[in-house]
Amino acid sequence: MRYDLIVKGGTVVTPSDSYKADIGIRNRKIAVIGELEKAEGEVVDAKGMHVVPGGIDVHTHFDMPFMGATTADDFATGSLSAVCGGTTSIVDFAIQTRGKSLMHGLEDWHKRAQGKSLVDYGFHMIIVDLPENRVKEMDEVVREGSPTFKLFMAYPGIFMSDDATIFRAMMRTRENGGTICMHAENGGVIEVLVKKALAEGKIDPKYHALTRPMTAEAEATGRAIALAEMAGVPLYIVHLSAGDAMEKVRDARARGLPVYAETCPQYLYLNYDDYERPDFEGAKFVMSPPLRPKGNEDRLWNGLRQNWLQVVSTDHCSFCMKDGVGGKPGKVLGKKDFSKIPNGAPGVETRLPLLWDAVQAGKLTENRFVEITAASPAKIMGLYPKKGLIAPGADADLVVIDSKKKHTISAKTHHANVDYNPYEGRVVRCSIKEVMVRGRRVVKDYKPLATPPHGSFVKRDARSN
Amino acid sequence: MRYDLIVKGGTVVTPSDSYKADIGIRNRKIAVIGELEKAEGEVVDAKGMHVVPGGIDVHTHFDMPFMGATTADDFATGSLSAVCGGTTSIVDFAIQTRGKSLMHGLEDWHKRAQGKSLVDYGFHMIIVDLPENRVKEMDEVVREGSPTFKLFMAYPGIFMSDDATIFRAMMRTRENGGTICMHAENGGVIEVLVKKALAEGKIDPKYHALTRPMTAEAEATGRAIALAEMAGVPLYIVHLSAGDAMEKVRDARARGLPVYAETCPQYLYLNYDDYERPDFEGAKFVMSPPLRPKGNEDRLWNGLRQNWLQVVSTDHCSFCMKDGVGGKPGKVLGKKDFSKIPNGAPGVETRLPLLWDAVQAGKLTENRFVEITAASPAKIMGLYPKKGLIAPGADADLVVIDSKKKHTISAKTHHANVDYNPYEGRVVRCSIKEVMVRGRRVVKDYKPLATPPHGSFVKRDARSN
Amino acid sequence: MRYDLIVKGGTVVTPSDSYKADIGIRNRKIAVIGELEKAEGEVVDAKGMHVVPGGIDVHTHFDMPFMGATTADDFATGSLSAVCGGTTSIVDFAIQTRGKSLMHGLEDWHKRAQGKSLVDYGFHMIIVDLPENRVKEMDEVVREGSPTFKLFMAYPGIFMSDDATIFRAMMRTRENGGTICMHAENGGVIEVLVKKALAEGKIDPKYHALTRPMTAEAEATGRAIALAEMAGVPLYIVHLSAGDAMEKVRDARARGLPVYAETCPQYLYLNYDDYERPDFEGAKFVMSPPLRPKGNEDRLWNGLRQNWLQVVSTDHCSFCMKDGVGGKPGKVLGKKDFSKIPNGAPGVETRLPLLWDAVQAGKLTENRFVEITAASPAKIMGLYPKKGLIAPGADADLVVIDSKKKHTISAKTHHANVDYNPYEGRVVRCSIKEVMVRGRRVVKDYKPLATPPHGSFVKRDARSN
Amino acid sequence: MRYDLIVKGGTVVTPSDSYKADIGIRNRKIAVIGELEKAEGEVVDAKGMHVVPGGIDVHTHFDMPFMGATTADDFATGSLSAVCGGTTSIVDFAIQTRGKSLMHGLEDWHKRAQGKSLVDYGFHMIIVDLPENRVKEMDEVVREGSPTFKLFMAYPGIFMSDDATIFRAMMRTRENGGTICMHAENGGVIEVLVKKALAEGKIDPKYHALTRPMTAEAEATGRAIALAEMAGVPLYIVHLSAGDAMEKVRDARARGLPVYAETCPQYLYLNYDDYERPDFEGAKFVMSPPLRPKGNEDRLWNGLRQNWLQVVSTDHCSFCMKDGVGGKPGKVLGKKDFSKIPNGAPGVETRLPLLWDAVQAGKLTENRFVEITAASPAKIMGLYPKKGLIAPGADADLVVIDSKKKHTISAKTHHANVDYNPYEGRVVRCSIKEVMVRGRRVVKDYKPLATPPHGSFVKRDARSN
Repeated sequence: MRYDLIVKGGTVVTPSDSYKADIGIRNRKIAVIGELEKAEGEVVDAKGMHVVPGGIDVHTHFDMPFMGATTADDFATGSLSAVCGGTTSIVDFAIQTRGKSLMHGLEDWHKRAQGKSLVDYGFHMIIVDLPENRVKEMDEVVREGSPTFKLFMAYPGIFMSDDATIFRAMMRTRENGGTICMHAENGGVIEVLVKKALAEGKIDPKYHALTRPMTAEAEATGRAIALAEMAGVPLYIVHLSAGDAMEKVRDARARGLPVYAETCPQYLYLNYDDYERPDFEGAKFVMSPPLRPKGNEDRLWNGLRQNWLQVVSTDHCSFCMKDGVGGKPGKVLGKKDFSKIPNGAPGVETRLPLLWDAVQAGKLTENRFVEITAASPAKIMGLYPKKGLIAPGADADLVVIDSKKKHTISAKTHHANVDYNPYEGRVVRCSIKEVMVRGRRVVKDYKPLATPPHGSFVKRDARSN
Repeated sequence: MRYDLIVKGGTVVTPSDSYKADIGIRNRKIAVIGELEKAEGEVVDAKGMHVVPGGIDVHTHFDMPFMGATTADDFATGSLSAVCGGTTSIVDFAIQTRGKSLMHGLEDWHKRAQGKSLVDYGFHMIIVDLPENRVKEMDEVVREGSPTFKLFMAYPGIFMSDDATIFRAMMRTRENGGTICMHAENGGVIEVLVKKALAEGKIDPKYHALTRPMTAEAEATGRAIALAEMAGVPLYIVHLSAGDAMEKVRDARARGLPVYAETCPQYLYLNYDDYERPDFEGAKFVMSPPLRPKGNEDRLWNGLRQNWLQVVSTDHCSFCMKDGVGGKPGKVLGKKDFSKIPNGAPGVETRLPLLWDAVQAGKLTENRFVEITAASPAKIMGLYPKKGLIAPGADADLVVIDSKKKHTISAKTHHANVDYNPYEGRVVRCSIKEVMVRGRRVVKDYKPLATPPHGSFVKRDARSN
Repeated sequence: MRYDLIVKGGTVVTPSDSYKADIGIRNRKIAVIGELEKAEGEVVDAKGMHVVPGGIDVHTHFDMPFMGATTADDFATGSLSAVCGGTTSIVDFAIQTRGKSLMHGLEDWHKRAQGKSLVDYGFHMIIVDLPENRVKEMDEVVREGSPTFKLFMAYPGIFMSDDATIFRAMMRTRENGGTICMHAENGGVIEVLVKKALAEGKIDPKYHALTRPMTAEAEATGRAIALAEMAGVPLYIVHLSAGDAMEKVRDARARGLPVYAETCPQYLYLNYDDYERPDFEGAKFVMSPPLRPKGNEDRLWNGLRQNWLQVVSTDHCSFCMKDGVGGKPGKVLGKKDFSKIPNGAPGVETRLPLLWDAVQAGKLTENRFVEITAASPAKIMGLYPKKGLIAPGADADLVVIDSKKKHTISAKTHHANVDYNPYEGRVVRCSIKEVMVRGRRVVKDYKPLATPPHGSFVKRDARSN
Repeated sequence: MRYDLIVKGGTVVTPSDSYKADIGIRNRKIAVIGELEKAEGEVVDAKGMHVVPGGIDVHTHFDMPFMGATTADDFATGSLSAVCGGTTSIVDFAIQTRGKSLMHGLEDWHKRAQGKSLVDYGFHMIIVDLPENRVKEMDEVVREGSPTFKLFMAYPGIFMSDDATIFRAMMRTRENGGTICMHAENGGVIEVLVKKALAEGKIDPKYHALTRPMTAEAEATGRAIALAEMAGVPLYIVHLSAGDAMEKVRDARARGLPVYAETCPQYLYLNYDDYERPDFEGAKFVMSPPLRPKGNEDRLWNGLRQNWLQVVSTDHCSFCMKDGVGGKPGKVLGKKDFSKIPNGAPGVETRLPLLWDAVQAGKLTENRFVEITAASPAKIMGLYPKKGLIAPGADADLVVIDSKKKHTISAKTHHANVDYNPYEGRVVRCSIKEVMVRGRRVVKDYKPLATPPHGSFVKRDARSN
């Protein structure tokens, strides 16, 4: 038999099993798995290595204007960073413009990505302005392959929706088969605390964290769950950071509710102490929700193992420290006022390496790694069974991981267009050996192989019921 | 020894003890408790009966304009109804007028009560409009003896405050020694559900309940607790009706937070089925929160025993069914639209009889009865140790209960100025024999004795810390 | 390419994925999965059907003497029943003889199975007598491929061990890499209740259930967990029947403890009401733990979905109603005294059909079906990755299920050697189409194909750590 | 009016109230409370001080043979120690002799106390041997005024009962109106751990704690609750030490079960670190359950405030360090084997001072102090309303506490007959000013006033229902 590509000799990892097998790829899809001794075709040597499904990062912000800045990474550099880190699909966020239709915002983001992305991509639709007469616009967004709406309980005056609006959106989403994604922090509380801090002359980056208490996230998470339960709609909590918020998700799931949550590597590996770094360095970690007090990480690790958290995404939202892309200012915007520091940090490239390092450390099984980085996000977000699995018929999005090599994370070597890395100097016990996007070899030994973009927009499925 | 009044031969009940003793009253206060064989003075015979502290009802609405109607009871008829039912102190609600100062509203209510009330009274201050420059007005209200602020998470456009406003009020209250009282229902969710129901032609009284789910109360209760925890202020949930909401209070208290809640007799004795009564009769029970599904009552009874609920108040807010007081329309306002039915029901007169009947039924101990009707409300609301206890030095507010007589509740015999009673025909195993307000006999055998009002405004204490 | 056998055109189901693929089998193992258009070999047609891993039933009692009777099924008829129901591996229980070595008991059971079983098999070791000098015998049992020890907290005087003995066994098992299986019911409490019932003349089968309260199981489950936690050893609760017991398992797992539990179809499909059947028919359902009150089933179903329960086994332990095998008496032994009814019921043949019917009913996903019937038991019991998965290199134990055909369960058609079926007349929405044991076709259309036994003893792995 | 004694000018403290009042005593009972300006009689000056009910310690071991030693304190010295510390009633433990009747043991203890005790006393009955034919003996013990039975889940071979025996005793106690007191630790587990430790040469006092894990107590507590729930009998957990055990009690109570627990000052003030003291000094703290790891104390304090724990008793069981009373050896018995150290420590004298110090520290209110030291034990143990309250008609057992004086705890000044004090050198912010036992002044300024014993056996009431 002849295949377009054969991944040979590796250990294939699925959410339930690990086994030695070759993978035969034909027409950009996986054709066969097993012993392919006499098969012909181009060979990717995976001997002694693990073969996992291409990473799916369902939370990135490329080419996003925010807080007077624009993210350092657009779809070209962002997707390059992604694929070099083993991520072969992303779901980014299209933003509605206040006063304009949802589709208008969606089309804008299609243009930003078109022809630039090295990885496959989809969009969540961020709703910022939903009077009753716009509610029905949501259905078209679902039909066009973006069945996930993001709403904010934080950022009053910018993104925040009140409960009536959120609930109205949920009621419609129950009908149109979509899922609600929620940024769950109580924006009202935070606004009061931020004003109070600034009035007291507290301007350093750490006050970003100190004005966004864990309880503000846990409260909003509980509220989002209650609203979704009353509306009868699935809910997905984005970038969950606080153990207390996680327990709200846990309890909802125990009652059988369709509630899901993602956390991000920064909440698993970093903590509040990073804000105490001198010389405005804490600004690197200014993101929302903020890093949490030491000890919180272990609660999240346990939650990942227990399936109280289903997904690890990145919330990749990069801003330079010194000066931004194209002459626009970056984090320094908030040098004298923490509340003006553009929120966000890069991460799309380091997610898989950091989590595989956790496998090496015994914190996760390799099977759970596949579940949280690929299978679960694909299933929850409507990319499955096209993506997120290694099985005959699936897209040949594959990553070969070498566990015997080590890799040092650094802004000097990363592929993102941003002048710092939150994990600078950290050594992970693995190396991304090969990355294939729909059967094409794109990265080898952590270097991009091919210049032309291979990524396409992927229509995602609504719930069938 | 000579006393102004001697209550003789009864069983005195306190939150921890029951014992036979006489009570000697002098200068309107309790002077001595024990065997007073040779003492002289006017005697109230309490032989074979129980003597309990005068009831304290910390949730009444007398002379209140609301939803286009005005409550049927003003301070004259309301306090008459109260005292005939064994309640000797109330705390009513003064309402801020939008755009005006808090003190302006407080003074308005002082005028409404002045010279009319048969019982002692105080005011909670309802905040409806709290821009930042008004926040400091709260301190004066506390100083003037009304250290409790009520905020609403429901009734958007009328009373509802958003989370930032609530949190701002809480932060100030932490400083000024007050306590926050909260109507905890998610008004945004309810608004959407009400509109949807009406659009679907659902106009009957029962839809009042069906558009206010338990989860909307539990959510808001949890949110109020989270906000209060972040602000570091005591919180008192008013008219808690849902078992799920109660469990939020329970869990907060288990963590040592100063969170309290009252329920009302209607949530203990009535349930959703009452809305299904024919001929618009369900309107009698239209109040917020609504009556809950059968089965919920038992959860509340358990919570009362466990001290997860600390107080039973009434939320007495009476509207006539047929035609209102002074020609103003009553419940019929909502004949064709449940959302227009004035919310509220009478109750100030039946609280003690209904709860003592629960003592007879073994659902509460007589000691717990005293705690939830007098001692706890007095302590939480700053009336203690002036009121709420039977001890030397306390105000001689006393009630003699005859457990051997039965009493039938009826609008025909009650003293409230309203044309129905939610418990019409219910027989309770007790009778209010005597009521003394600060040492003066006011009610005997369920009949008012004296015409002139005895009640005064009682300045309540702020927290000392 | 040439294969010994090709399962063609089915939908392969794994714990995480379902996909259309052919399966090529060579040397009794799965060689390749995918599109095998040009492959040669004997073909099993699975078009339109599901292909799942052969069922693994880790709780059977074949050829067991108990309570004065002997089970109706030996390894010949038991394994026939198993394989006709889609189960290709079992783990049965070898019983120590009091006063004799563990190995003596193990060898006895080897003899009972030898040359008779149609399916692969292993043994758990039941410990009944463990003085300190026998403790070290446990290690040899582990080394000989039976790394699971069963202990009883019930059946005083027969099987029951006291806590010191249990704890001693656990401490040793921590060292030797084994796992403790526990029958968790408080035998002391039950003994007192049984005596009391009999003394009061309560002799009917239903008193079997009424003298074994849910709390007696929940208590013992909690105790077993506590002991295992203190010993640092994995624990597997057998035949968990009570929702309250399940919650103990749930809470232990949430703390990260290696605690597992199986339930059985009888606890998911039957309930206490079956004991109320007339004419001693309740005896059919006399087993320990007993069937639980209606409503308990739903708690278990939820637990299965939530992974609070990991396995469904059968506790197949068949006794005839009328007269037993080989002239020995069956359930009638307890006609006048419920405590003498031999405990147990058949089930090995109906497990997969009943659970696949639950898939059809939407109670389980097909992926979860594979997990609880094959993957999880294989992993927990040391049979993995030889068994319990469909992947290259695994034993070709495969079952083809036809979801379009219905099947009526009946003692008239079942293959077990017992004169009743607890599910008599129940219709399931599926049919066992084909069963392959290590690549050999053994059953077709619910009929055994081959006469000679194919089963072998399978050495199971101890924990590596 | 004339009184035998007047306690003048103090602040009377009850579980719910604190108020200034005089107390008039006549015929050894409280006659009247209030302003007694013109009353005549001997005066105890309590101005500026608190007057609380005499302490009730329901867990002492005086004159008890145990582990080859005998307690250092008999009823003379023990009760002297008690009353000097403000305790006016105790309940001690009568022990059944194996093979003899319960009444035989009870009578033995009556003799030990007769004519010696300075305080009133009662007995719990320790059951060590309860074959079925003895079960009915329990009823007589109840009738004779000792309606509380203590059973042990620890000390195998000495006191431990198996679950069947415990359950049998509980079933009978449900009928006879008694209450079960339980020493809840898993004796089987502990036995295995002790043997293992000794076999490994671990002989120091700290191994006493390390072989009695918190989980062994939590398990047994949960088991006792389950058994009591199945039997339908009230349960009282003695000397609860572990936060995990407390949570079992908390959860049972939340379900409305009649489950109670006491803790002791040692578990509130001391912790595991005390075992690490050099030179065998750790032996001073060898008691069962042992002191728990630091941090556990705060859980218990919270539980005391939350009413998850209802009582603080002492488990006073004193053994000398150097040489025992009457030449018998003390703690040194276990110099070379921690398991031979007689278990127990003194405490009856320091309970009230330590807990009032907690009042001063803001850890407890003074009202809660009265509840846990007097009111609750009196109510649970059947001494109420004779004892445990300050009210007309109650026994005049009164203690005057001076909060302005400090007191240093020391073996040099304490009145117990034991050569060390676990709290040596600790300063408490209060002083026991006066102690009255049934209206007689017994202690003044921490010195005994009268020589002849005043204490009598007090018949305690069984439950009425």
